[in-house]
Formats: sequence, structure tokens, C-alpha cells
Amino acid sequence: MALVGVESDLLGDGLKRVQGEIDSVFDAFLPVPDDTRARLVKAMRYAAIGGGKRVRPLLLVSTAELFGVDRTAALRAGAAVEAIHVYSLIHDDLPCMDDDDLRHGKATVHKTFDEATAVLAGDSLHALAFEILADTGTSSDPFVRSELIATLGTASGMNGMAGGQMMDMVADDEGIEYDLHSITKLQQLKTGALLAASVEMGAILGKIPHEGRAHLRAYSRDIGLAFQIADDLLDVTGDQEKAGKALRKDEEQGKQTFVTLMGVDQARDQASALVEQAVAHLGSYGDEANLLRALARFIVERDR
Amino acid sequence: MALVGVESDLLGDGLKRVQGEIDSVFDAFLPVPDDTRARLVKAMRYAAIGGGKRVRPLLLVSTAELFGVDRTAALRAGAAVEAIHVYSLIHDDLPCMDDDDLRHGKATVHKTFDEATAVLAGDSLHALAFEILADTGTSSDPFVRSELIATLGTASGMNGMAGGQMMDMVADDEGIEYDLHSITKLQQLKTGALLAASVEMGAILGKIPHEGRAHLRAYSRDIGLAFQIADDLLDVTGDQEKAGKALRKDEEQGKQTFVTLMGVDQARDQASALVEQAVAHLGSYGDEANLLRALARFIVERDR
Repeated sequence: MALVGVESDLLGDGLKRVQGEIDSVFDAFLPVPDDTRARLVKAMRYAAIGGGKRVRPLLLVSTAELFGVDRTAALRAGAAVEAIHVYSLIHDDLPCMDDDDLRHGKATVHKTFDEATAVLAGDSLHALAFEILADTGTSSDPFVRSELIATLGTASGMNGMAGGQMMDMVADDEGIEYDLHSITKLQQLKTGALLAASVEMGAILGKIPHEGRAHLRAYSRDIGLAFQIADDLLDVTGDQEKAGKALRKDEEQGKQTFVTLMGVDQARDQASALVEQAVAHLGSYGDEANLLRALARFIVERDR
Repeated sequence: MALVGVESDLLGDGLKRVQGEIDSVFDAFLPVPDDTRARLVKAMRYAAIGGGKRVRPLLLVSTAELFGVDRTAALRAGAAVEAIHVYSLIHDDLPCMDDDDLRHGKATVHKTFDEATAVLAGDSLHALAFEILADTGTSSDPFVRSELIATLGTASGMNGMAGGQMMDMVADDEGIEYDLHSITKLQQLKTGALLAASVEMGAILGKIPHEGRAHLRAYSRDIGLAFQIADDLLDVTGDQEKAGKALRKDEEQGKQTFVTLMGVDQARDQASALVEQAVAHLGSYGDEANLLRALARFIVERDR
């Protein structure tokens, strides 16, 4: 199931292309103002431009492409999801949260600027995500805009990403050892919700009705879980330099993860099985879904 | 121009009623989950329920009432604006920002819970605001929902509240002494944008076209500035117990404010003149705008 040949090229090209495009969207939305807000916007640009794999935007754009959605619209929606992802990383890295110094191979925002600027830059990227989605340039259809916003709002708030982070934090603080069921729920909220929202938003742009998104939803549920298992594996077996962030943190903190609960080998098998299952959910699509298939495989094979 | 008799009753009743109603909306949107996210939702409830004057929701609801908008819809939109206001207070009070221990007469969120929970609770209230606005229960018209979101997103982000906070912070850090022009811009962003958005959102719910909102916009620009001048006056002359938060902070920090730039008397005159001007902008409305008139007066006469 390894990524080889054509599929690898497809993915490499796809990621590279979307990385440049997402940088351009952020660049356009973040002109540095000619007043003392400049520090804020510079911090936002520092965090948002030129870093990250852009897995979420690529998921969104590749799903939208299945339905012939205009690429500019899909990229704007992709930038909105990425803005949420980036804001969450900035806040996660804060001293009162994970206290990380390194992100995407460079100093974290609070290290390069300061803590208060990091809080505000995160908050402003959070608002920017919804500004982008509410803009008529993203979709001329107000129903689509509103559905995109509802999807992203739920995926990022207390019933999504932020809720998952809290479950994670409480376990650390109170030494709770979650079982596999709770870890799965935690990760589905913390990581899965935003990955699933990316796919969902691609389908919303394609005006696919709710009931027509079931296969795609099954695909994204599986890759979400596989993504987190791969992250846990990376923390144990990865190369810190390639990853561009601190590793071996789970073990140091004595944290329950998929790997501590299942062991390295079983976790790896489980991630592979989930990816195959995810790919199977795309059975009704032809070659146009090859990028989504390649992305699923990349998710477990990545080294960062 | 003091609030007397009928107008005072109207305002008192209006505030009291909306306070209860906004608490109910938050209560309904924030059920405490039966898992370890409970800490997060408890912190959100602690910050959002039972505190604050609810000036922004009352502005929104009173504007919406001019146009016969269903009260339930207006209250939901009001809760969304208030969620943004509350999130900004939580983050503002953090040790790395203003480091405040007291808010609305009780311990701040990071004091009662912890810093990480305060960051996440703020983030989750931020997301909740957009979730509420994107919900079909707030408006069945997707165009209205999308316009509400665009308005609130802009008012809260780098070109609104967060931008104003950054201008404020940079002045503190770098000892910049803003002139009256810059202070006015700073305050229009930091405080004015969200107050103006409250009025604007009431008109959006009333389906008043953009060009039909000019008088209301002039009204909210004036009360926004008056509000901040009153805040600066309160910091100098107010009673800390009534205010329920730390006062005399501007002076301690050697900060430029409307009061340091104009003096107490001139600042007071200026605030009164702005309020009269704001009230004059409502000239085309009859008694149905009395609550907006009373609110304008309250803004400069409040003691907290």
C-alpha cells in the first residue's frame, strides 16, 4: 500500500501546488497595516504563511474538485480551515498549554513575538476564518456560506477541536488514564473533527445534499483516526528534525495514546487497515478521487 | 440630560429583562457534557452566565425591535455578540495580557480555573458565537445569517476589537504616547466596532438595506466613542466596588486616554455632547426608539 510512482507524484504535486496557493490567499487577506496593528498582522503572517503540510486545505480542495467546484472558492474555504488549524497551534504552543518552542521547524509565535501577541494573533486568525467564509467571494450562494460556517464552527468549538483539547488537558492534569474508547472519542474531537470538516466543506461547496455525503463522511472518519494514530507513532519513532517540532512528549508526560494502548506494531496495522477502509469508501468514484486516495495513504506514511 | 422617571424605568426594565433572557440563551447552548469536557463548559458558563451589563445584546435587541424582528432571533444574535465580548474579556484578563483578578465582581476565569482552561474557554465562546449565528434557529434566511456573521467577524478580528487591543498593547509596551486622533482610532476599533456591530446586526435582522442604516450607524459611532470616554472617566473617578473590576489602572500604567488628553471636565462635556448627537441621529424614529435613547444616556452615566 506504499505510495509509489504515479500516486506519489500526484500527491507531491498536489501538496506543493496547494501550499503555494494557500500562502497566496493568506497573503491577500493579511496586508500589514500602516499603524501599530502591524505587530499583530506580522505575527499572523509568521504563523500562517510558509509553514505546515496543508493537509486540510488539500482535503477540501480535492473533495471540491470531485464536484467541479471553482478552485478559487475551494482555496478560500481551505484557507479558512487552515486559519482555524493555525490558530489552534499558536494557542496550543503557549506556555500555559503545551509550552512548545518549535513549530514547523521555526520558533513558535510566543517565542518570536510574545505571549500576548500570540493570544491575539490566534484570536484574529480564528475570526479571519469566519470572515473569509462569510465573504461573497468565497461563494455567491448565502446558503452555502452559512453551511460552511456552521460546519467549521461546530468542528472547532467545544463539541470539536477545543473540546478534544480539554479532554486531553484534563487527563494530563488529573492523571486520568483513558481507555481506547475514550482516547478514540478524544482524538475524533481534537483532530478528526477538523479533518472531517475539510471534506464536508468540499462537498458543501459542491452543493451535495447532506445524505449524499455519507461515503465521504465515512472516508474522513477513517482517515481522521488513522491520522492521529500516525501522529502517536511519529511521536515515538519519528525524527525530530524532519518533524520540525518536539517529539517523545507523550512518553515524557506518561500519556495514554493509541501506541501505549496498542503497542507500535498493532497501532501501525490499525492505521493501515483504516486507510484501506477509507479508500474503499471512495469506491463509487473513479480516477478523479485518486488524490483523496493518495492523501489517505500519505497520512500514515508521512514523517512530519 | 440625566436619566429620570419614565426613561430610567424603561432602561432599567430593558436591561433586567435582557439580562435574564441572555442568561437563558447561554444556558440552553451550554449544557455540561458528561465527560471530561465538563471543565471547559463550566468555565464557559462561569464567564458567560450571570455577569455583565449586557449593553451589546440590549443594543441589538432594541434596534431589532424598531423593525418588528422576532425577539427570539434577536436574543440569539445578541448572545452571539455577547459571546465575543465575554471571550475577549477572558483573554484580556490573562496574566500575559492585563493580568486581572477581578471581573464583574468575581474572580476571573484563569483564577477560578486555570490559564489553559481560560484560553480554551475563550476560544470556545468565540466559536460558539459563529455557531449560533450560522444556526437556522437564529434566522431562516441564509443571506441574513451570512451577513450577521460577516459583520461580527469583521468587528471582532484584526480590523476590529483584536486590532484595537493590539494598538493598546503596543502603546503600553513601547511607551508610545498616542495623540487624540490615534486614541480615537484605537477606541473605535477596540470598543466601538463591537457596539456598532450590535446595532448593525439588529438592522440586518430587520432586513434593512445597507444604505438604510446610515442614521443608525451614526448613532452607534457616537455612542461607541462616548462609551469609551465614560470608561476612561470611570477608571479615574469610579468606585471600584461598584465597578466590580480593578480601577486606576490607566494612571498607574501612565497610559494616554481621553481623560489624560482632555482632562476630566472636557472629557465629561465631550461624552455628553456625543450622546446628544447620537440621540439626534434617531430623529426619524418615534417612541419606539426610546430605549436606544435611554441606552445612549446610560452609557455615559453608568457607574460600572
